[in-house]
Amino acid sequence: MNSDIVTLAHGSGGRAQQKFINEVIKKYFSNPVLDKMEDGAVLPPIKGRIVMTTDSFVVSPVFFPGGDIGRLSICGTVNDLTAMGARPMYLTAGFIMEEGLSIIDLEKILGSMQKAAKEAGVIIAGGDTKVVEKGKADRIFINTSGIGEMVKSGINISASNAVPGDAVIISGTLGDHEISIVKGREGLEFGAVISSDCAPLNRMLEPVIKAGVRINAMRDPTRGGLAAVLNEIAAASGIEISIDEGKIPVKKAVRSICSVLGFDPLYLANEGKMALLCAGKDSMRAVSILKKNKYGRDAAIIGNVSGKDRKGKVLLKTSAGGERIVFMPEGEQLPRIC
Amino acid sequence: MNSDIVTLAHGSGGRAQQKFINEVIKKYFSNPVLDKMEDGAVLPPIKGRIVMTTDSFVVSPVFFPGGDIGRLSICGTVNDLTAMGARPMYLTAGFIMEEGLSIIDLEKILGSMQKAAKEAGVIIAGGDTKVVEKGKADRIFINTSGIGEMVKSGINISASNAVPGDAVIISGTLGDHEISIVKGREGLEFGAVISSDCAPLNRMLEPVIKAGVRINAMRDPTRGGLAAVLNEIAAASGIEISIDEGKIPVKKAVRSICSVLGFDPLYLANEGKMALLCAGKDSMRAVSILKKNKYGRDAAIIGNVSGKDRKGKVLLKTSAGGERIVFMPEGEQLPRIC
Repeated sequence: MNSDIVTLAHGSGGRAQQKFINEVIKKYFSNPVLDKMEDGAVLPPIKGRIVMTTDSFVVSPVFFPGGDIGRLSICGTVNDLTAMGARPMYLTAGFIMEEGLSIIDLEKILGSMQKAAKEAGVIIAGGDTKVVEKGKADRIFINTSGIGEMVKSGINISASNAVPGDAVIISGTLGDHEISIVKGREGLEFGAVISSDCAPLNRMLEPVIKAGVRINAMRDPTRGGLAAVLNEIAAASGIEISIDEGKIPVKKAVRSICSVLGFDPLYLANEGKMALLCAGKDSMRAVSILKKNKYGRDAAIIGNVSGKDRKGKVLLKTSAGGERIVFMPEGEQLPRIC
Repeated sequence: MNSDIVTLAHGSGGRAQQKFINEVIKKYFSNPVLDKMEDGAVLPPIKGRIVMTTDSFVVSPVFFPGGDIGRLSICGTVNDLTAMGARPMYLTAGFIMEEGLSIIDLEKILGSMQKAAKEAGVIIAGGDTKVVEKGKADRIFINTSGIGEMVKSGINISASNAVPGDAVIISGTLGDHEISIVKGREGLEFGAVISSDCAPLNRMLEPVIKAGVRINAMRDPTRGGLAAVLNEIAAASGIEISIDEGKIPVKKAVRSICSVLGFDPLYLANEGKMALLCAGKDSMRAVSILKKNKYGRDAAIIGNVSGKDRKGKVLLKTSAGGERIVFMPEGEQLPRIC
């Protein structure tokens, strides 16, 4: 057994896998629930309503400025639970590794997961490791699934619950994650380093919910970007959303790369942003609570639900003074960004 | 967009993915929880203690006699929850697909998942689809994660809970799954068709638990086979286990393929079998309840916890009258069997 790389035996169910789990995985994920090494994790009692979600991560490259597939895999699932109004609690991690993956790289990824899980306050309650032959996967794929409990009882956040009068809030700048991946993949040298925004947002959103802000719809704009998320909400709620280009926060460096590559920031993936539609009267308060968190410093009200429209239209008031429809993206601008 | 194969756009977060999910995935997985298409599934209240697990499936070939990766992905997670004494309730499904996967094959797999989920009585509460470029995965990988509630309160099944006096029960014949894969992969023509035993075992075990049989340890012998599972239990409980070769059920056809290929049935993977260590006084009753289920017809008492042994030894009384140690397997006999 070569101890520097992942081999097929590490996914075998035998002694080599036991050793691998004890010496590599447990170094990062040890906790009382996981350490029992049973077929399933018996969880401490949970009081609130339970929310469950899953996400697989296949991002390429595996390491990028501001994060890696490990941090992404924790943040993605934490943010999906957060978007439902839940407090993320327990995650599972399923690894599919390509034979030959370096253990050093794997440990970097596990370290990132550990750090992100600690930051989010979630426990890795279970895991699974599989290894496939060289050439049958691309280094590493990670699935995380998670459960959480509703932050408060009576919460009903849904893409179909937005109503006229709601304000549209974005918690920060658009496009940082996708541009960091493009730059890493293409080896683009121009402009400043753009770091991915990859972050767990639960501790930013929980105070907003606890403060009684009436959030009707909430989604993290990952694949397909803000354009996809707002179109989904507009369609599910049967409403028309208007957003104001001049109010949408985009970093200068991201904007210039977009103009060179012909990308539109509205369609770029984010991994540390949340789009909220909340009652207009609560919107200023929501933004001021978001701004108190380091991930919400650039939070802004960028538009509102401007009317009933059963077709679910999203309109953009351009900086030039015009108006255009923001269509649902057909595909993404770039594959494998998460 | 070629509608016969999976393309990168199907994992994009845009309109193409929406269409794919609505027209392909939902055809098989539609239910009130999933159909909301939110970032997470809000589950109906759960009363009992919750158990959570995850498993990724990378089996090759994807289709094999007696099952496919879809059926396997449901049964594997259902059986892990079952092994903890839980009633499986909600599963998530995460798909990583290789660009070019045929939609016909995908639909076969989804159909198998639907059928197995129905058989087990579990609900697919959430899902995720990712697509990677051709050559970056091997057709399809599936992660399923699941939660269930304890069948009864006060259950404490653990690999570390076996005690002297416990009987060792296996719920049926060994090796059927792994041999079905070997034959499929190698194109071996000899002997009868061996079908995988791939099956959800929750409905077989629930009556055993409800009848008050005191199960101390329970595990489904997948990768590494019965040898791995009994070694894990012996080590975790600090006991010595003795099993009797003559009592271990193995199909004649499996036995003859094993003798040709030099395999030992004790080390072969199963996907529809459970190994139970229960109080000796309850063991006859347990077997008779297991036998009432179609998946437990060949259930048998095959040994017992024969003493205290902190090193956790497993002994086999051979049919020839000798005795040998059954070691923990180093690796598996064959990679990618699940």
